[in-house]
Amino acid sequence: MELPHCETLQLERIEGVLHVTLNRPDCRNAMSLAMVTELRRVLLAVRDDHELRALVLRGAGGHFCAGGDIKDMAAARAAGGGAYRELNRAFGSLLEQAQCLSQVLILVLEGAVLGGGLGLACVSDVAIAGPDAQFGLPETSLGVLPAQIAPFVVKRIGLTQARRLALTAARFDAGAALRLGLVHFAEADGAALQRRLDETLEQVRRCAPQANARTKALLLASEQEPLGQLLDDAAEQFAAAVSGAEGIEGTLAFVEKRTPSWAQ
Amino acid sequence: MELPHCETLQLERIEGVLHVTLNRPDCRNAMSLAMVTELRRVLLAVRDDHELRALVLRGAGGHFCAGGDIKDMAAARAAGGGAYRELNRAFGSLLEQAQCLSQVLILVLEGAVLGGGLGLACVSDVAIAGPDAQFGLPETSLGVLPAQIAPFVVKRIGLTQARRLALTAARFDAGAALRLGLVHFAEADGAALQRRLDETLEQVRRCAPQANARTKALLLASEQEPLGQLLDDAAEQFAAAVSGAEGIEGTLAFVEKRTPSWAQ
Amino acid sequence: MELPHCETLQLERIEGVLHVTLNRPDCRNAMSLAMVTELRRVLLAVRDDHELRALVLRGAGGHFCAGGDIKDMAAARAAGGGAYRELNRAFGSLLEQAQCLSQVLILVLEGAVLGGGLGLACVSDVAIAGPDAQFGLPETSLGVLPAQIAPFVVKRIGLTQARRLALTAARFDAGAALRLGLVHFAEADGAALQRRLDETLEQVRRCAPQANARTKALLLASEQEPLGQLLDDAAEQFAAAVSGAEGIEGTLAFVEKRTPSWAQ
Repeated sequence: MELPHCETLQLERIEGVLHVTLNRPDCRNAMSLAMVTELRRVLLAVRDDHELRALVLRGAGGHFCAGGDIKDMAAARAAGGGAYRELNRAFGSLLEQAQCLSQVLILVLEGAVLGGGLGLACVSDVAIAGPDAQFGLPETSLGVLPAQIAPFVVKRIGLTQARRLALTAARFDAGAALRLGLVHFAEADGAALQRRLDETLEQVRRCAPQANARTKALLLASEQEPLGQLLDDAAEQFAAAVSGAEGIEGTLAFVEKRTPSWAQ
Repeated sequence: MELPHCETLQLERIEGVLHVTLNRPDCRNAMSLAMVTELRRVLLAVRDDHELRALVLRGAGGHFCAGGDIKDMAAARAAGGGAYRELNRAFGSLLEQAQCLSQVLILVLEGAVLGGGLGLACVSDVAIAGPDAQFGLPETSLGVLPAQIAPFVVKRIGLTQARRLALTAARFDAGAALRLGLVHFAEADGAALQRRLDETLEQVRRCAPQANARTKALLLASEQEPLGQLLDDAAEQFAAAVSGAEGIEGTLAFVEKRTPSWAQ
Repeated sequence: MELPHCETLQLERIEGVLHVTLNRPDCRNAMSLAMVTELRRVLLAVRDDHELRALVLRGAGGHFCAGGDIKDMAAARAAGGGAYRELNRAFGSLLEQAQCLSQVLILVLEGAVLGGGLGLACVSDVAIAGPDAQFGLPETSLGVLPAQIAPFVVKRIGLTQARRLALTAARFDAGAALRLGLVHFAEADGAALQRRLDETLEQVRRCAPQANARTKALLLASEQEPLGQLLDDAAEQFAAAVSGAEGIEGTLAFVEKRTPSWAQ
């Protein structure tokens, strides 16, 4: 896999994990069109990389992401209404792509997690919040809409909570995000956050890479396809997995009470 | 906007908020056909009122609503089976209408919140419970069904919790309603409840009225339409909002660090 | 109703409740094909038994169910890929059947609740966990997929939690299962667990049997059918229920302040 050159992101690959850092700390990593484009290129580049087990996404400078970039908005205004539409839709395409990433997507959420930043949190497999994280959907208080992120927020935390948060623009902290099911963990300090990330990566390494990719696809499909067809497909996939290389190694390692090859 | 004359409801409009009080305290505001009809007329009357920001619904006499009215049941029995069906379906139509109300719907829940009363709680944008609120679905213990409210309860709290509550007719308090996600706040006393309502109305006023109405429609649509189409439509609406009057005022106010016009 | 003869299950009928115990304690009640087949026969046998109010499912020897049976896997391997598929799909059919059981399905969860055991927990109407229950989806750590159970887990606890648990194979205890909404109760010891079961059965007995069966069907249908049609059907069913034997007895008992016939 060759990673694209990026201006707005820092990329580092360590032992089967790609660490991606949003790197525009001057504006709390506001999501510019350039950043959206670079993130989409990175996700595309790793799509078929079966050596890669997880992608960890976080922000530089103590904030995850404060939402859309006001300068891009101004440029789009100059370019006319069609430019707004494309700018907005590109972010939705990023969310669709991130939702379906075949590797495990882990988000580390510190400081501002607002608007589009909150949208990204909604498509993670594991979300870990730090003590100072601040979440919110400020869009309607600015006279605009949480347009692309609305369906992802509803899928993540349900209609009941999404409607209150979107229609009041209320801010909330990591504890509330945990209770809402927006994040999986709220940690008390930076050391605890790092330990949780290490533990999560260790758990992911114990899971077979292809089995994980197929399981993720099954989970995502399960809200769209009819149940009977889904179960028929799942049985086919189960049979293929259990008689494939990972299934053979996994059951053998279980019987022999040893660590399977992918976990070493 | 001209409000309809009502026998079973008290209506008061204060600063862009319509306060509606179910006013049959003698029978704990049991939902009669007359009350259903009047509520539907009120919701229809405010539908296109863009000056109205929120509708606050509560019950007189310390109870929200104890469910269906036994007297109406008796009258329907005399009129034959078709009358039962129409009586029941009319309440479902009220729930559909309340769910889609373009303004923010806030419910204050005290005392009995049973059967149809619980159904109404399920279509609110913000639900605030008082300390003595008692929730439950007693229908099957009376030999009947929570028929019209079933889908709204499932959408609100999920199938897992809905099935236990409907099949055991168990009562539960405000704390349990909070944990289930049926309500957003459970307050310790009347003063705290009033403060929470005031704070919520203040938050709603900071959000642009049309942006809120469109965001609510997007959230409701997001569970029904295919994702790609939804995101395309949302991008169109985003472009219209950002170049419309509210979007221009909102971004200008943000840059100028002042309160936007709709929040004054 | 005549119950089938079973090798892997203990069956006992007491006062309108069928107690089913998974009875392969030597292997922590691992779900063999024989057990799946016998469970499906039992569910089929009670399907139209309107005297039966509830089915209580638990495991012998301190564990509920540790997942699929490794010996069956080995036999299927010898028989070729088609056998894996059928073995897997049969378990999915069991879950479909259990989900739609017209009586109330109550699960008592102790010890291991893993893989397929967790899948069964996901289709219960009331799930009560004991203090030592251990939950998890270990499949991908064995190189295989939680194939048939994936859609039931997503429906039970939502995509957000399902994706983390399936992609990390993390174990979790009864307290976490309660917070996730996988179970309804987490009890501190065996006596508290028994009291909760007794209380739940007492609540179920207070609900009219046919009203409960129809309400359960309505709740399950509400995630699949369009809302308008659902409400029309529900109104028909409400009219039939209120003018049927249970509805007449229930409202009469309410007016006369006495216990209805089905609760005696």
